[in-house]
Amino acid sequence: MSISKRIEKIQAGLRRKKIDAILITEPHNRRYLSGYSAPDHDIGESSGALLIPARRSPLLFTDFRFKIQAESEVDGLEVMLYTKGLLPLLQQLLPELEVSTLAFESHYTLHSVFEKMQTMAEKFSITLAPMDGLVEKMRVIKDGTEIDKIRRSVLLNEEVFQEIYTTITPGQTEIDIALAVEATMRKKGAESPSFDTITATGKRSALPHAVPGLVRIKKNKPLMIDMGLILDGYCSDMTRTFVPKKASKKYLKIHRLVRKAQLAATKAIRAGISAAAIDKIARDIITDGGYGKHFGHALGHGVGLAVHEEPRLSSRNRKFLRAGMVVTVEPGIYLPGWGGIRLENMVVVRKDDCEVLNQDTTWLDI
Amino acid sequence: MSISKRIEKIQAGLRRKKIDAILITEPHNRRYLSGYSAPDHDIGESSGALLIPARRSPLLFTDFRFKIQAESEVDGLEVMLYTKGLLPLLQQLLPELEVSTLAFESHYTLHSVFEKMQTMAEKFSITLAPMDGLVEKMRVIKDGTEIDKIRRSVLLNEEVFQEIYTTITPGQTEIDIALAVEATMRKKGAESPSFDTITATGKRSALPHAVPGLVRIKKNKPLMIDMGLILDGYCSDMTRTFVPKKASKKYLKIHRLVRKAQLAATKAIRAGISAAAIDKIARDIITDGGYGKHFGHALGHGVGLAVHEEPRLSSRNRKFLRAGMVVTVEPGIYLPGWGGIRLENMVVVRKDDCEVLNQDTTWLDI
Repeated sequence: MSISKRIEKIQAGLRRKKIDAILITEPHNRRYLSGYSAPDHDIGESSGALLIPARRSPLLFTDFRFKIQAESEVDGLEVMLYTKGLLPLLQQLLPELEVSTLAFESHYTLHSVFEKMQTMAEKFSITLAPMDGLVEKMRVIKDGTEIDKIRRSVLLNEEVFQEIYTTITPGQTEIDIALAVEATMRKKGAESPSFDTITATGKRSALPHAVPGLVRIKKNKPLMIDMGLILDGYCSDMTRTFVPKKASKKYLKIHRLVRKAQLAATKAIRAGISAAAIDKIARDIITDGGYGKHFGHALGHGVGLAVHEEPRLSSRNRKFLRAGMVVTVEPGIYLPGWGGIRLENMVVVRKDDCEVLNQDTTWLDI
Repeated sequence: MSISKRIEKIQAGLRRKKIDAILITEPHNRRYLSGYSAPDHDIGESSGALLIPARRSPLLFTDFRFKIQAESEVDGLEVMLYTKGLLPLLQQLLPELEVSTLAFESHYTLHSVFEKMQTMAEKFSITLAPMDGLVEKMRVIKDGTEIDKIRRSVLLNEEVFQEIYTTITPGQTEIDIALAVEATMRKKGAESPSFDTITATGKRSALPHAVPGLVRIKKNKPLMIDMGLILDGYCSDMTRTFVPKKASKKYLKIHRLVRKAQLAATKAIRAGISAAAIDKIARDIITDGGYGKHFGHALGHGVGLAVHEEPRLSSRNRKFLRAGMVVTVEPGIYLPGWGGIRLENMVVVRKDDCEVLNQDTTWLDI
């Protein structure tokens, strides 16, 4: 769907709800609806906002730092600069645009900012309508162009993984490997990593969110690498676990169980099955293998412009999968004091099955 | 001031305002008041919250991922884990703790989260009191221990800069240098960079927030490096601009003007002078030199647990500096199509003067 089609869809929704305009501040949504790619440094340091009126073309607001970037990236959108912040500009524009009901992104607006917006709104008799997840709901289904971008992100990520994987030696530390991963990503043209690279050796691999440390790789212990990058806006996310030298029998047994769970879940993914049902398929296999309580997280999550987005493949998500969703499938078993094994691929949900986007087979079927 | 003294100060303030407890969610404030150092992945993915009741000891809430870290870092604080998120736990605890007025950090609470808190609060007849900057106001004055930590952060940052500076060659790209900077930081024990390293060559140095690119260093053009790291929680922030080979006369002239502005402003910094007055001293020198409109940002900002905090050294900040504040002094001149020069040091405000924390003199007085 082109950006203008996305905008039309939002506008139709606004008209149905009798809302005059929506202010988009969440950076991925802003990019999805405008092409403007600047991320926010953080929620308190916005790189801009997109105002979509129900009946006229959108306006992108930003400040002088991003003027050139914004103007070169957006197509058919007017770019306006604010010098004293967004609110004073809105205060001037909203009455001109005859906006009397303004929607805003409740899940990406600070309460302190909301209070200021509320003061302004009262002054101009504007009603504020909090909205949550409106654009995210559109983003959850990817079209062919988006899937193509995600595929390229996945393949570049694998290229980086291979380049690092072939040079891993026991003398290196976790930090050495993580830095090499992120440097290689940037050298190969990624915008950035899609999250902080995880490299965890030995028993540290039992921490699902380990931060790389000055710890040397153990040659006969598990090494878990969880990495992803952003290419053309779209994220990848992949985990491989392996043993640099010789894997123990216990390692092989657990690894094969994780892979079995991954394969079974992948085989079952198709439009019309619930997220919880897919999670259960993987979880049952791990439970039957005796490690149920050591698989402490959900099976997967959506990936797109954000590295974590809907749908969650969790036992609590009863919603049905739909064609065009892109999700990770990442079962894991974590034994405190021993280590952890997680294997993660990304798949596209199709009508009758799913397509695995990953080509890399390193240490999957051992 | 020890953490327990900080807590006592907050509690005394709560009692004065007849507030029963405050919920601290902003990660730097959380660390300042507990020692718990996990950052938030982003505002929607919290690593925990600190509840400070007015009349009993604080509670740190987090989830199982951070249990070990939290318990080892906090001293004398109870750590409680939530499994279904923070709100269900609060819903159970607040009535037990007889909290009828609960303050929260308005500037680090999403509107969507506030709405859920509001629903819970109404159910239990709790009044919510938005607060903004309560802890930040305490953080703005650093004690000796904090200044010592900042000093070590500054010196380690300079050590990293020197290691990279001596190896810069024109064949490298901006990205090569930025990656080397960040890798060296982590290898030398920094927690992380305090912001994305800026390395900008040639006319790209005219963009104050340039993102490093696959652009080769130009040997006779300005190279700007703006870098900082986090050590033991505290940030550093330093900019040096230089020419790898031979600087032009124009370069030397502008560089000396920037340095003159920096020195004059630094000389004037002391407790009791307004932030705006300091900004003006530097700005007047650059304006007199003919480049006033090319110094498009404020002169400096506070640095501590956050790399950008109060006070801003800007023309709009009429507040007086106070002893124990730590600020950057970073005038810059940016000429579109030519390049930019910014020089940045950090200083501690003292009663009658200030102390420059930087020892590095690379390309300052040329």
